[in-house]
Amino acid sequence: MDEQLKEIIRKITKFRDERDWVQFHDPKNLAEAISVEAGELLENFLWLNIEQASKLDDKKIGKIKEEVADIFIFILYLCDVLKIDLLAEAEKKIAINAEKYSVAKAKGTAKKYTEL
Amino acid sequence: MDEQLKEIIRKITKFRDERDWVQFHDPKNLAEAISVEAGELLENFLWLNIEQASKLDDKKIGKIKEEVADIFIFILYLCDVLKIDLLAEAEKKIAINAEKYSVAKAKGTAKKYTEL
Amino acid sequence: MDEQLKEIIRKITKFRDERDWVQFHDPKNLAEAISVEAGELLENFLWLNIEQASKLDDKKIGKIKEEVADIFIFILYLCDVLKIDLLAEAEKKIAINAEKYSVAKAKGTAKKYTEL
Amino acid sequence: MDEQLKEIIRKITKFRDERDWVQFHDPKNLAEAISVEAGELLENFLWLNIEQASKLDDKKIGKIKEEVADIFIFILYLCDVLKIDLLAEAEKKIAINAEKYSVAKAKGTAKKYTEL
Repeated sequence: MDEQLKEIIRKITKFRDERDWVQFHDPKNLAEAISVEAGELLENFLWLNIEQASKLDDKKIGKIKEEVADIFIFILYLCDVLKIDLLAEAEKKIAINAEKYSVAKAKGTAKKYTEL
Repeated sequence: MDEQLKEIIRKITKFRDERDWVQFHDPKNLAEAISVEAGELLENFLWLNIEQASKLDDKKIGKIKEEVADIFIFILYLCDVLKIDLLAEAEKKIAINAEKYSVAKAKGTAKKYTEL
Repeated sequence: MDEQLKEIIRKITKFRDERDWVQFHDPKNLAEAISVEAGELLENFLWLNIEQASKLDDKKIGKIKEEVADIFIFILYLCDVLKIDLLAEAEKKIAINAEKYSVAKAKGTAKKYTEL
Repeated sequence: MDEQLKEIIRKITKFRDERDWVQFHDPKNLAEAISVEAGELLENFLWLNIEQASKLDDKKIGKIKEEVADIFIFILYLCDVLKIDLLAEAEKKIAINAEKYSVAKAKGTAKKYTEL
């Protein structure tokens, strides 16, 4: 695995273990944390239309960066407890998506694969 | 940035552009997608107690791997449109968390920093 | 409390008890269910812009009706186990919101009360 | 429809219109609001095990009551803009659930109907 990502994983697991937090890191609670943070990310876009959502000020971009980092860190914690290789699974999913969404059928449409 | 992660980002942006999908990838819709996938991840743990959630069968682990990959891919798409360096933001957040949750105050407790 | 709502609560608690499901209805799992269903509701709007989201076809409206009902039913189950009077709490919240969002400050803006 | 619920709907639509907020109440944004509030509800249970989640102190119960009210109010707003009869849809869903989850098959198990 990549060095910078390995180092981040090393830091966050050390952070967790120094604080004796692994007792709280069962997969159910980690999945809850991801949902909670996803809601906090989404809140930054609430009541905006698409145009406003594409012209965000620095303050908002700053909050979005923090929430994105939070979600990512909890994803890494979940992968750690369930021994999931995140990058390998991402590559598998790209292949699965290529099957579900051929360029011929999916180009220019946002339809779910069940409706293509 | 790391090579394997760079390659994944290259693949998913190529995937998006071959299908002419960047028109749908405004940050508001991407944040919605992350919430939708977070709910699908959480559904795997619904009605389970903590013990059951820590003894998952292979079928369930397979679904969890797919949902984790989905969330991660949408996080990468959001970072691409907002020009966010995901690993750099993760490192910043680790430092912010170290300030909020000193080992002395936070060890062994799951209390939010506002209540430490 | 209102008769029709009382009858719905009577039916769903009978449904739950006939199936011996109260064992799964701890508040944490019910809160998870509400999040999962909220994600399923949101999925109906994914990738749409605001205009498309306001011109939904019958098939989509049908799915939205089911998800709204699901969320509402789980809200009622949560209120049942925690002995929450839903309509009384809604009335309290309207009063709290009137304090946070005076017409003078809040008219025509979607800003959160912390930024008014 | 029931009188107390009708009155709540009358109050919240008056609240919305006094503040000229219907412009923000397209169904996509209302569905986002429901997800955001569902995440805030879930946060009250984060890191708790099932036992702790069933012995909540008054402060926590107070927050839960507010979040439940928030979700319910946004559900009512969504029903208002889409002309959905919430109680009628709840009754339809109870009937659909009775089909999917017969007492014979579903008693004592939390399995999804697709796996019964």
